[in-house]
Amino acid sequence: MPRPGEFELIARHFAPIAGPGGLDLLDDAGLLRPGRGYELVVTADALVAGVHFFPDDPPDAIGWKALAVNLSDLAAKGARPEGFVLTLALPHGWTEAWLAGFVAGLGRMAEEARCPLIGGDTVSTAGPLTLSITAFGTVPAGRMVRRAGARPGDVVLVSGSIGDGALGLKAHGPDKPGWVASLALEQRAFLADRYLHPQPRHALAEALQRHASAAMDVSDGLVGDLAKLLKASGVGAEIDLDSVPLSPAARAALMADPALAELAWTGGDDYEILCTASEREYPALIAAAEGSMLPLTPIGRVTAEAGVVTYREQGRLRSFAQGSFSHF
Amino acid sequence: MPRPGEFELIARHFAPIAGPGGLDLLDDAGLLRPGRGYELVVTADALVAGVHFFPDDPPDAIGWKALAVNLSDLAAKGARPEGFVLTLALPHGWTEAWLAGFVAGLGRMAEEARCPLIGGDTVSTAGPLTLSITAFGTVPAGRMVRRAGARPGDVVLVSGSIGDGALGLKAHGPDKPGWVASLALEQRAFLADRYLHPQPRHALAEALQRHASAAMDVSDGLVGDLAKLLKASGVGAEIDLDSVPLSPAARAALMADPALAELAWTGGDDYEILCTASEREYPALIAAAEGSMLPLTPIGRVTAEAGVVTYREQGRLRSFAQGSFSHF
Repeated sequence: MPRPGEFELIARHFAPIAGPGGLDLLDDAGLLRPGRGYELVVTADALVAGVHFFPDDPPDAIGWKALAVNLSDLAAKGARPEGFVLTLALPHGWTEAWLAGFVAGLGRMAEEARCPLIGGDTVSTAGPLTLSITAFGTVPAGRMVRRAGARPGDVVLVSGSIGDGALGLKAHGPDKPGWVASLALEQRAFLADRYLHPQPRHALAEALQRHASAAMDVSDGLVGDLAKLLKASGVGAEIDLDSVPLSPAARAALMADPALAELAWTGGDDYEILCTASEREYPALIAAAEGSMLPLTPIGRVTAEAGVVTYREQGRLRSFAQGSFSHF
Repeated sequence: MPRPGEFELIARHFAPIAGPGGLDLLDDAGLLRPGRGYELVVTADALVAGVHFFPDDPPDAIGWKALAVNLSDLAAKGARPEGFVLTLALPHGWTEAWLAGFVAGLGRMAEEARCPLIGGDTVSTAGPLTLSITAFGTVPAGRMVRRAGARPGDVVLVSGSIGDGALGLKAHGPDKPGWVASLALEQRAFLADRYLHPQPRHALAEALQRHASAAMDVSDGLVGDLAKLLKASGVGAEIDLDSVPLSPAARAALMADPALAELAWTGGDDYEILCTASEREYPALIAAAEGSMLPLTPIGRVTAEAGVVTYREQGRLRSFAQGSFSHF
């Protein structure tokens, strides 16, 4: 089957997932109109085959995740998704079947988050498939949740469960370590799916915007991302590692190999929300999260000692050599 | 000199060209707040080394042009630049000197257009350097200039001069054709500079927004881009090729090799504005353009015959085999 040219490619694959602001992808630009009193939150992520995903990952999962990681940032900032643009550099060997799968995953994520495509660009590359998404959300003016708002005495919380993404990468990747075989099939599938199909926590956005003092998403590992949030806020924290929420599958993996705890706390790809809230606000934040069926779990306290993070595990102090996973 | 990590790289190179909406590039997102009654125009372009520029082009020119091509789209849409995000995939051999040059060119263009950086992402790639820019502009709500607004009887106009970019690519590239040697040194330099440092016509944005019925920028060649505009509008046109404005350097090249006229009309990288305006509005459009020191030249008329473009050159009809340059 001959591959379509750029015009046909856009009409056939991308126009069906475009929103009204995309003007049918027939113009040179898209349009966004934030409601009166709202401002626009803009976030961007680039993904490269062989760096951020395996080139032979299911194309549907690549498309899903490419948008999901951006929506995760918007959720952490308290913003409601409004649309995104995609630039895509296709390698020489691309097929239309691959593209159809990619757009299917991208489109499902876009529909679930009500965040349509509004524009983009498609080019060719002699290198690996490379894509970049810029996503847009809205918040009431002045209400974006910053990294820099944590204050001493605030409670530190995380959404969902931590470590599934990093464990899922091992369970999904080509070189499976021994502990993977000790898991039940459905546990392996759960972890791999958490890696392949992260769920951006946009249902928490409004609660964060109302009640959180600071937030970011956990994409490069809890320990490293917490250090970034605390640094931006000029504070420290005391964290109870025993409180960090783990999924049943992650617990089973840690039973098989207790050394995996370090991976769970420092590995990437969680796409959960890390946030802080004042003593007064945090009960309302937890209640709002429960209303969204997305539990938030307190894991520690913000302290006044800038840059000092104390981790406790079963009563003992613990420190981390490698703070954060870096894709760079 | 050791290369900086991602955090240092952002602080050292990118933070100096960031605007207030970039929040010092220390958060997960940037902010845009269009004024009341305005909406946001969003455009994106991806560029790949070896496809859109030569890998050993001056890094300053690559940075300049990466933003310029997006600002050119905003100008054609009648939008005032407000900011941009950059995602950059750096190849394994990148150097800090290259990056400093790239950001210098990018920053000069950003400053000249008052269009600051508000966010982005930096990753590594095993392939060629790849970058993607999403740029934002504002227009009074409902006033973005579309491709689809041309009406029969409208005048067709182009800004500046046509063909310099495509001729400049030849004059600048590694395999210089014979006609290049026949040009004066300053003519060669002029053409190469038009290719390397396109000037986005943002000074025309307000005039277009007030007076044009349709517009787009000429990035893939006049003939091909005119076909796109007419198709979007459901109309045709009669074009007088003798009226198409040429620079003195392009005239000298066409004197040396008359066959270059085809390249001038169909080659890419002009980054001029192609627009239409009604009989009533076009004098005001031309006057406003003259006020901005950017001439607009009438080159033909819109006709009612959808898809039919008649080109006349020295009294004879002329047609084009290859309509448009494609980077895809």
